Amino acid sequence: MNENPIGIFDSGIGGLSVVKEIINILPEENIVYFGDTARVPYGTKSKETIKKYAEDDVNFLLKYKPKLIVIACHTVSSYASDYLRKKFKNIKFVDVVKPSVEKAIKVTKNKKIGVIGTTGTISSGRYQLLLSKNNMNVYAKDCPIFVPIVEEGWFENEISYKIAEIYLSEIKKHNIDTLILGCTHYPYLKNVIRKVVGENVEIIEPSYEVAVKTKNILEKNNLIRKNDKGKIYLYFSDIGPYVKKAISFLFDKKIKYKLTKNV
Amino acid sequence: MNENPIGIFDSGIGGLSVVKEIINILPEENIVYFGDTARVPYGTKSKETIKKYAEDDVNFLLKYKPKLIVIACHTVSSYASDYLRKKFKNIKFVDVVKPSVEKAIKVTKNKKIGVIGTTGTISSGRYQLLLSKNNMNVYAKDCPIFVPIVEEGWFENEISYKIAEIYLSEIKKHNIDTLILGCTHYPYLKNVIRKVVGENVEIIEPSYEVAVKTKNILEKNNLIRKNDKGKIYLYFSDIGPYVKKAISFLFDKKIKYKLTKNV
Repeated sequence: MNENPIGIFDSGIGGLSVVKEIINILPEENIVYFGDTARVPYGTKSKETIKKYAEDDVNFLLKYKPKLIVIACHTVSSYASDYLRKKFKNIKFVDVVKPSVEKAIKVTKNKKIGVIGTTGTISSGRYQLLLSKNNMNVYAKDCPIFVPIVEEGWFENEISYKIAEIYLSEIKKHNIDTLILGCTHYPYLKNVIRKVVGENVEIIEPSYEVAVKTKNILEKNNLIRKNDKGKIYLYFSDIGPYVKKAISFLFDKKIKYKLTKNV
Repeated sequence: MNENPIGIFDSGIGGLSVVKEIINILPEENIVYFGDTARVPYGTKSKETIKKYAEDDVNFLLKYKPKLIVIACHTVSSYASDYLRKKFKNIKFVDVVKPSVEKAIKVTKNKKIGVIGTTGTISSGRYQLLLSKNNMNVYAKDCPIFVPIVEEGWFENEISYKIAEIYLSEIKKHNIDTLILGCTHYPYLKNVIRKVVGENVEIIEPSYEVAVKTKNILEKNNLIRKNDKGKIYLYFSDIGPYVKKAISFLFDKKIKYKLTKNV
């Protein structure tokens, strides 16, 4: 079983940042990634459609007998992770929301936690629900322009700073001591966000927390692979220029992978 | 044949702005719209996939025996309109690129034309090709942050103005006298764009030009319907909150329509 891969899926390319973090801390694991680029994004679809697509994605990964599956997609984690856990009872799942929630609860001192994400993630209320259940005060805000700002490469200029000021002004007023960056793109704006919220706020990055959680589960279950470097298989339902651009942007040149289109 | 509807399709909701313009100038026409919201956006997909999806969309509309089909999607117009015209020889097509190209050629005096659009539209080179063929000097720029700026409702604030200044600075240097807004979202930023490019630049809006072109073709072929108010049928492959929001944002409350999910 230890030889079996970690399965990871996302609606598109965003989950590659989770792959990157897992390679960093678990370099000997085999990884099978599926990005549903033919149907990306999921965030604008109905709940019913999101569940159906998520099920398709899991069924694809099951062919490779994964020892654990990472739901690297915020939309699926928000709307369909309970559904998947029920449907596929024998599978160990790590979703992209819970590890950050657990970390936030652990590090906060004043129980005031901020959460930012896409409109879909924030309006799903998933982060808010899981944090409130644990008696946290949650202040959430969607930041729809952050993703295109990152894709434009404006990581730290006047405009990204101004937009961050507008988006975070309300959250800041509540004197939060912890902020979850609930979107795989947002870590690129960390400097700008840091400037706006100040030095004393703990910033939590879901991709990293997911990797740590994955490691913990594998260790606990004696499923860690200790051998040579793991193999990386990347499958996408469609391969346009965006996919190749994202891979070369995210991955160190030393990382070897096999890229395949799957229909 | 005059009773038959005008068919209109788009990858998602953007084409509803074309529906709106057609209702404005051809209020007595029946309209069948298909938005492929389950697979939106097309811009990030491969050419092969775009062609396949476009063919699916046309086949859906053909069930309603349209007297003309409007390709309201910039991606399909750029990558698959020649393919569709070849494949469906008996259908009259109006795409969303050519009418604006024709208008620009007609109104320009110095033959210097600017084109802005999404990264997909601009990198397809379709506008540039059609304009250059007619001996125009073309200056094109993709403006990826304009769409989310519009969706945030920041039609005219400091940030939208600053972003417009950055995006249009290069084009402006070339002393253009005509600018095509090659994306259905951009007309909402017209005031800001106008401020940046100045009063003397003719601004061309594709949705409006498509409606005019449609009217001309129907008149030429004696296909105009003259009766009572036309019926509007809106089909989407998925209906999430975005679809309803877009309809209520775009359509006058007096417009009656029937909304159906088609799988």
